[in-house]
Amino acid sequence: MNPFTRNRRESVAAWGEAKLITVIRRWLGDVSPRAPFGIGDDCAVLRPSRGRQLITVDPVIYGRHFDDRVPPRAVAEKLLKRNLSDIAAMGGRPVAAVLALTLDARVNRRWLEKFYRGLAASARRFRVTIAGGDIAQADGVLAASLTLLGEAAGPRVLTRTGARMGDWIFVTGMLGGSLHSGHHFRFTPRLAEGRWLARQRAVRALMDVSDGLAKDLHALTPRGAAPALDASALPRRAGADVRAALTDGEDYELVFALARSADQAAFLRRWRRAFPRTPLTCIGRFAAKGKFPADALNLADCRGYEHLR
Amino acid sequence: MNPFTRNRRESVAAWGEAKLITVIRRWLGDVSPRAPFGIGDDCAVLRPSRGRQLITVDPVIYGRHFDDRVPPRAVAEKLLKRNLSDIAAMGGRPVAAVLALTLDARVNRRWLEKFYRGLAASARRFRVTIAGGDIAQADGVLAASLTLLGEAAGPRVLTRTGARMGDWIFVTGMLGGSLHSGHHFRFTPRLAEGRWLARQRAVRALMDVSDGLAKDLHALTPRGAAPALDASALPRRAGADVRAALTDGEDYELVFALARSADQAAFLRRWRRAFPRTPLTCIGRFAAKGKFPADALNLADCRGYEHLR
Repeated sequence: MNPFTRNRRESVAAWGEAKLITVIRRWLGDVSPRAPFGIGDDCAVLRPSRGRQLITVDPVIYGRHFDDRVPPRAVAEKLLKRNLSDIAAMGGRPVAAVLALTLDARVNRRWLEKFYRGLAASARRFRVTIAGGDIAQADGVLAASLTLLGEAAGPRVLTRTGARMGDWIFVTGMLGGSLHSGHHFRFTPRLAEGRWLARQRAVRALMDVSDGLAKDLHALTPRGAAPALDASALPRRAGADVRAALTDGEDYELVFALARSADQAAFLRRWRRAFPRTPLTCIGRFAAKGKFPADALNLADCRGYEHLR
Repeated sequence: MNPFTRNRRESVAAWGEAKLITVIRRWLGDVSPRAPFGIGDDCAVLRPSRGRQLITVDPVIYGRHFDDRVPPRAVAEKLLKRNLSDIAAMGGRPVAAVLALTLDARVNRRWLEKFYRGLAASARRFRVTIAGGDIAQADGVLAASLTLLGEAAGPRVLTRTGARMGDWIFVTGMLGGSLHSGHHFRFTPRLAEGRWLARQRAVRALMDVSDGLAKDLHALTPRGAAPALDASALPRRAGADVRAALTDGEDYELVFALARSADQAAFLRRWRRAFPRTPLTCIGRFAAKGKFPADALNLADCRGYEHLR
C-alpha cells in the first residue's frame, strides 16, 4: 500500500494535529494508558524501575526500511521488534515505548490507521506500553523512530563485553536470506531466550545479529582473539549459502560466548528443555590470532551490511 | 551553515557508519559514558530510577525547525531544551537521552561536529547523559529526534489535570515574538522553577507553553470553565502585541493554576525570593462559562500554532 494520497480528504492534513492525536489514542486502545501514563501530557509518567534500566532507539523510514509492497501493519511490527531484539540482547524485559512520527501532510489516514493498529497489536503481544510520542511534519518523509525502555530481568545484564579466549560461540535460530524469506518482518525477538541466558553464569557476553554475523561478531571478540568459525556448522536458512549466512543481515538472532570451561552438552540439554523450538548451534570459538586453526573460516574476507556507503 | 556538501570527502559518506560512531563518541566526550552506560552496546544501561519516571520525545527537522541560517550548535541546543521544557512542565529532573539521527549521506561532517559538540555542551550544562542513539540514512533528510528520560524530583509530579473553577492562572517569563527575537533558541528551560512549583501544595496543574498560550491553555482548563484572562496583564516580550503573546508559540514558559484559596501575595513573595530573575505574572483565573467576566479576554477568537495544516 502506498502511504501517500493526492486526495486531501483521505490525508492526515484533513484532520490536523489535535484530531490526529485523538484518533491515534483510539487506534492504540488499551496499549496506551490514560494521561499522564500515556499520551496527553507534557511527559508520560512511568512507575519507578525495578532494577537497572535499558534504553534503545531504532527507526523505520519509507524508501529505506520499507516501501509500497510492505503492509503498514508489518512496518509497525518490525519497528517494535527491532527494538525488542536489542532488549533481548541484554537479557532484559521491555517496559514502555515512545514513538516519534515524521510525516508528509499527504500521508493516507488508512495507511496510518493500519500502522498504529499493527503497533498496538504487537505492543500488546510483547506487553509494551506506548506511553507517548510526537508528530512532526516534513515534506516527502514518512519515518517513525521508536525509543524502547526496558529493565534488567534479574541481577545480571549481559553486554557485548566479557568473552574470553577459547570461549565457545553460539548462535540461535538460522542465519541468512532474511530479506528474501520475509524473516525480517516475521521474526520473533528472542526475549525469553535472552533472559534465560542472562541467568546462566557460563554465558559471558551476548548481542543480537542485525548487520550480519561477520560484522557483528567483531564486537563480541576479545582482544587478541579472532572468531574461528566452522563453516559447515553455520545454521543456514533454506537457500542461504555460507556467505549469505555471514553477511545478509537482519537475522535478529542472538550470538553469545559460553565459557570454554562449561559443559557444552549439558548446556545444550538445558537449552532444549527451555526452548525446544529455538535452534541453538555452536559455530566455533574465539582463538588466539597467532594460533588460528587452518580449517576455520576467516571472517576478514566478509563484511556485513555497511551503513552510509 | 548549509548542512549538505557536494564534496564527498567532506561528507559523512566518506567515513561510513562505524567511523562516524567513533567520531560522535569523541565529540560527545564525557557526556556519553563508556558502554554499556553510553554508546556501544545493544542498549544503554541506566541506573534504577529514584522515583516515578518521565519520558518525552521531540525532533528537529531541517526545513521545518531550522535552516541554513541557524548555527548547528543552536539546533542541537534547541533540540535538548525543547525536551527539557517538557520535563520542567512536570516538575521533574532530567536524567538521560538517546538521539535518533536521520541523515543524507551528503551531510557535511563539519556541520555534524558542531551539532554534536553543541549537544554535548548543552547536555553538560543541564546534567543530562547522552546514553545512546541510532543513525539511519535517508535521501534529502536531516532530522534528529531526542528522547529524554527524567524522574520526579519529589513526591509529586505536576500534570495538566487538577485545576479547579476559580483558580488563578500564572505564567512565567514573557510571551510572544519568540521567533523574531531568537528566544526560541536562547531560552532556558524552567527546570528549577518546575521543581519548585511541584513542591507547592497550592499549585494544582502545570504545563509548558509551546504552541501559544491561547491553544495550550485549553489543556489546563477544568471542565465547565473558561480561562478569563486580563489582556493588560499579559507579560509581553518587547514588540509583541496581545495577539502575538497569545498565539506566536515557542515561548517555553510555564503556565500553572494556583488554588483560589491561596494567598497570592505571599506566594509571589516566596517566588521572588526563589527566582528573583524569573518574572511571574497572574494573568487571570478560570471562570464558569456562564459567569464569564465582560471585560475578560475571550480566547475563542485566538488559535495557537496548528500543526499539519
